[in-house]
Amino acid sequence: MDRKQPASGEDSLIARYFKPLATDPGAFDLDDDAAVVKTPGDDIVVTTDAIVEGVHFLSDDPADTVARKALRVNLSDLAAKGAIPAGFVLTLALRSADDAWLTAFALGLGEDAKQFGCPLLGGDTVSTPGPLMISIAAFGRLPPGKMVHRSGAKPGDRVVVTGTIGDATLGLDILRGGAVAAAVGEDARARETLIGRYRVPQPRNALAQAVRDHASAAMDVSDGLAGDLAKLCAASGVSAVIDAPSIPLSAPVAILLARGAVGIDKIVSGGDDYEILCAVPEDRFEAFARAAAIAGVAVTSIGTVIAGEAAPRFLDGEGNEIALPRLSYSHF
Amino acid sequence: MDRKQPASGEDSLIARYFKPLATDPGAFDLDDDAAVVKTPGDDIVVTTDAIVEGVHFLSDDPADTVARKALRVNLSDLAAKGAIPAGFVLTLALRSADDAWLTAFALGLGEDAKQFGCPLLGGDTVSTPGPLMISIAAFGRLPPGKMVHRSGAKPGDRVVVTGTIGDATLGLDILRGGAVAAAVGEDARARETLIGRYRVPQPRNALAQAVRDHASAAMDVSDGLAGDLAKLCAASGVSAVIDAPSIPLSAPVAILLARGAVGIDKIVSGGDDYEILCAVPEDRFEAFARAAAIAGVAVTSIGTVIAGEAAPRFLDGEGNEIALPRLSYSHF
Repeated sequence: MDRKQPASGEDSLIARYFKPLATDPGAFDLDDDAAVVKTPGDDIVVTTDAIVEGVHFLSDDPADTVARKALRVNLSDLAAKGAIPAGFVLTLALRSADDAWLTAFALGLGEDAKQFGCPLLGGDTVSTPGPLMISIAAFGRLPPGKMVHRSGAKPGDRVVVTGTIGDATLGLDILRGGAVAAAVGEDARARETLIGRYRVPQPRNALAQAVRDHASAAMDVSDGLAGDLAKLCAASGVSAVIDAPSIPLSAPVAILLARGAVGIDKIVSGGDDYEILCAVPEDRFEAFARAAAIAGVAVTSIGTVIAGEAAPRFLDGEGNEIALPRLSYSHF
Repeated sequence: MDRKQPASGEDSLIARYFKPLATDPGAFDLDDDAAVVKTPGDDIVVTTDAIVEGVHFLSDDPADTVARKALRVNLSDLAAKGAIPAGFVLTLALRSADDAWLTAFALGLGEDAKQFGCPLLGGDTVSTPGPLMISIAAFGRLPPGKMVHRSGAKPGDRVVVTGTIGDATLGLDILRGGAVAAAVGEDARARETLIGRYRVPQPRNALAQAVRDHASAAMDVSDGLAGDLAKLCAASGVSAVIDAPSIPLSAPVAILLARGAVGIDKIVSGGDDYEILCAVPEDRFEAFARAAAIAGVAVTSIGTVIAGEAAPRFLDGEGNEIALPRLSYSHF
């Protein structure tokens, strides 16, 4: 035994798979107990989200997509707050140190860390007999006092979402062999699109600056549009009216909805969208939309913030309220 | 149903148990997706450590001590790096939302957050069918560039530890009904002391300033003194010689060692000490010891840093090297 190196499976696991990702000088090559986030006058925004096997990802999801999802759900929070990614720390709870799985996991994590400019700063690896769990705390930078809150929406603001809504929850239904799986049938492209959106969210970090410049309130949609909009409204002390036909849908979701294979209620109450939901004052919307176009992020106005404390209402094409038995996903 | 509040068990769990702890203005009452750490010119130090049921705590450990341990293992890292606590985010993976358990957990967490000046800034609560797991990422403040690294130890420096070594690993042995349980027998006070040290570490945050002012290298002892000293030496490119009889022991551990009920190898390779291990230049030791006395933290010089790349050697009272079959705890 080489006496120079303390022999520990945990240390060699970290050295082998994760040290190559820790390229930020503040990570000290993962050789220390802590990392440093340099803050030249900025505020540091902190967010944390965990993903659990069987809940947020499935046992046979590819390891690289598990890693990407773990990081991206946190990147999505930073984007919604208007912050620029600064780095993250990782807690990995594993049943065993499986080489092929860890190699793919580290590859996906490293690629995404590079793509989004959010380096690994540190972490902890623990063993568990239970489901895999990946908990990430991510950090972002912001000029002092500039975080975009849930609480700034005002009556008259537009309600805006990025991307498309509902893909991920239908993708999960397909993976679980639910009703959507039967409805999609042999349409490989639809299956792939929807499953891909469940496994690998597309955080809208390119839109962070525009959100900071123009939005009065923002959050990311992680537990379902209806429930998350209710949270934003509650935090702002307002209500909202949503024009359901305006909600942006991907082609496969639009087709499934038109065929009656899924209802709009499932689309707006399913989780895992990881789109940005924000309120934008009417006189800022044009500038916001222009900035979004430059950033390459689709944004859609889906309704209006109104005064009041009632839960937001979703109206159909005839102006009738859509009943939503369940607003969003809850763990308990 | 009150339509104003989105009905979610997860939200009400957070509101009920954790909102009262989020007293820092940067936590925004846990009503937002992220928190803000204000940084008036300081560096932010980031560390993360998770504790898992059955590994770092036992199923029937009191919930309040589980919470305290989860926070304190992170506070210990901040202390060793010379940083002042600034706050933390929490990921809680639970099988169910048990009211009595959560009430006690939040109580312990809140008391410790207050005691150590480290407020809850945010978190995520997820359900798991597996063991409970608590992952915390903690933040500290430091003047720019002042983090104390593992890598600064120089030949001639003293090797210093705080508190006493070995209590926690013997406490765990008692809880598991091992050999130490039999040796301790009916000595309730010894049992209580050792179990208490396993369940509730005493992070040495009061010593952070002295570590920053005087130590050339530091880390916290979490996986066993021998293995952690080997890591510090490897990071610094040095070796060390330890005088085993100088290692500070609590009364119960000293008695068990004298009776031959445990060996020194178990004491120096067991985990969960959460003491600070540091290297202090000879000409700074007196000032360091004085500062430690004022801070009320016991510090003991246990050996000397020497040149070389060999693993540190532990010598007995006759100067003979003690064989250490296992340096420290490893998860894999």
